[in-house]
Amino acid sequence: MVDISLLGCGGGMPMPNRFLSSTIINYKGRKILIDCGEGTQVAMRFIGSGFKSIDVICITHGHGDHVVGLPGLLATIGNSGRVDPITIIGPKGIEDIVKGLRVIAPYLPYDINIIENPNIPLNIIEDLVVSTLELDHSSPCIGYSFYFKRKPKFDVDKANTNNVPRIFWSTLQKGERVIEKGITYEPSMVLGSERQGIKISLITDTRPLDTIPDFIKESDLFICEGTYGDEEDLDKAVKNKHMTFSEAAQLALKGNVDELLLTHFSPAMSEPELFKQNATNIFEKTIIGHDMFVKSLAFRD
Amino acid sequence: MVDISLLGCGGGMPMPNRFLSSTIINYKGRKILIDCGEGTQVAMRFIGSGFKSIDVICITHGHGDHVVGLPGLLATIGNSGRVDPITIIGPKGIEDIVKGLRVIAPYLPYDINIIENPNIPLNIIEDLVVSTLELDHSSPCIGYSFYFKRKPKFDVDKANTNNVPRIFWSTLQKGERVIEKGITYEPSMVLGSERQGIKISLITDTRPLDTIPDFIKESDLFICEGTYGDEEDLDKAVKNKHMTFSEAAQLALKGNVDELLLTHFSPAMSEPELFKQNATNIFEKTIIGHDMFVKSLAFRD
Repeated sequence: MVDISLLGCGGGMPMPNRFLSSTIINYKGRKILIDCGEGTQVAMRFIGSGFKSIDVICITHGHGDHVVGLPGLLATIGNSGRVDPITIIGPKGIEDIVKGLRVIAPYLPYDINIIENPNIPLNIIEDLVVSTLELDHSSPCIGYSFYFKRKPKFDVDKANTNNVPRIFWSTLQKGERVIEKGITYEPSMVLGSERQGIKISLITDTRPLDTIPDFIKESDLFICEGTYGDEEDLDKAVKNKHMTFSEAAQLALKGNVDELLLTHFSPAMSEPELFKQNATNIFEKTIIGHDMFVKSLAFRD
Repeated sequence: MVDISLLGCGGGMPMPNRFLSSTIINYKGRKILIDCGEGTQVAMRFIGSGFKSIDVICITHGHGDHVVGLPGLLATIGNSGRVDPITIIGPKGIEDIVKGLRVIAPYLPYDINIIENPNIPLNIIEDLVVSTLELDHSSPCIGYSFYFKRKPKFDVDKANTNNVPRIFWSTLQKGERVIEKGITYEPSMVLGSERQGIKISLITDTRPLDTIPDFIKESDLFICEGTYGDEEDLDKAVKNKHMTFSEAAQLALKGNVDELLLTHFSPAMSEPELFKQNATNIFEKTIIGHDMFVKSLAFRD
């Protein structure tokens, strides 16, 4: 089960009851945070989230509304007793941004590994592959996809057919190879076929791009910016390098995703729900996000 | 009338419903912000405060819980249409801190004047004198006092006795000198005697100091850190360079202030009210602060 919580749905400036951009994913007790607008740690307190198990922080870009909460969060993680390193992924320039913001948190009890614009899939946490895509915003910006792999089932018949001694079954099931008396036992000798994992993709802030549908392809959940709900704000979306609800919905349709979750609403839009139809007309399974929105995704069977 | 709002009463880490350190003072449409912990601009939205009229930002020290919200706030002030300069006052090192944090807000439509550890009374806004005092914390830290001067009354008898032509009365009342046909007319020729202003002092974070009572002397409102309510936490207060409620109350008593407002509560103290008596036993007129607490002070007559 993968749990996704929108900590803040606001773009630009915070509004009463709308925090700035931040999303957290929980999987097997580990946490991945995407963006860290001001108030992220406050929102985490609201939902009762701990801080120690944040292993990866993914920053889309260096605009304040996506990154200002970082130094306070890093300090709070330090106070939580964490000593294991944290990985921060971000676009080109993220290292300088983290360095600047850390003026108020220079000493931390854990190391920080920074990966700038990786461009290759990363395997930082077991069973998770993080991929990135360069976006089109007014500063270097990347989108993310998270693929949570599902382990194949243990296949007793296969193990017996392959004459694998029972004593090695549990080791092989964990994916580790065993060599005994010159014989090599591979995990594939006891495991069934690959099973579908869970894919979550997150695209903010950007104009629509031709590369996005393939990147988000068949996501179980596609979290996307919908800065403007009203179609009449398209010119603002173009000028400020954002998207309208209908543009996000078009991407969801082209990407054949399972569900679209809109977030990153303009401060000028106090009731995003009023514009929901502009998305559902194009892509039926659209959710208008709100702060503290939680979604749980189970592996399909 | 001077209005004081506690935007956040938390020290160290935010708690559900307790933002980090920040206080705002409103006077004649101008605003003075003291400290800017993470979430300050969110709290300002909660109370419906505007951003454009913040003229002075006073930072006590560079710990994250007092300063992390600064870059986001500066960006939001920029979006509010402000072009007039802002003054930031802080302890030694504040310039480097502001510079570091501004990595995410490098371009602003207004200038920032930074004053490090001024050590002399400052007259940045008309009728307001800001004084500072070096405190005893684990990083350079200063306390503040704000004296809002009250203009003397216009004295018609005095103006007539001094043969001041009526045409100059309003100019002189505003405090400006007039020279006409070789005769100098001073404001004092039409104004009554000095009237008592309003004094607000704010002391956080620090151990008690012998210099504090004189600095806060006869404040109408003394806002003071009370990190620990329980007397049994005195050793923690000593170790972490903070104060207990009773220590803050002792300062209020010695300083002969009118009222004590406690703030900056430890995250470990969920109900500061439970320890109120530890302060009121020493200083009766103690208020336990809470987020969005508002106090209005009128000039005495």
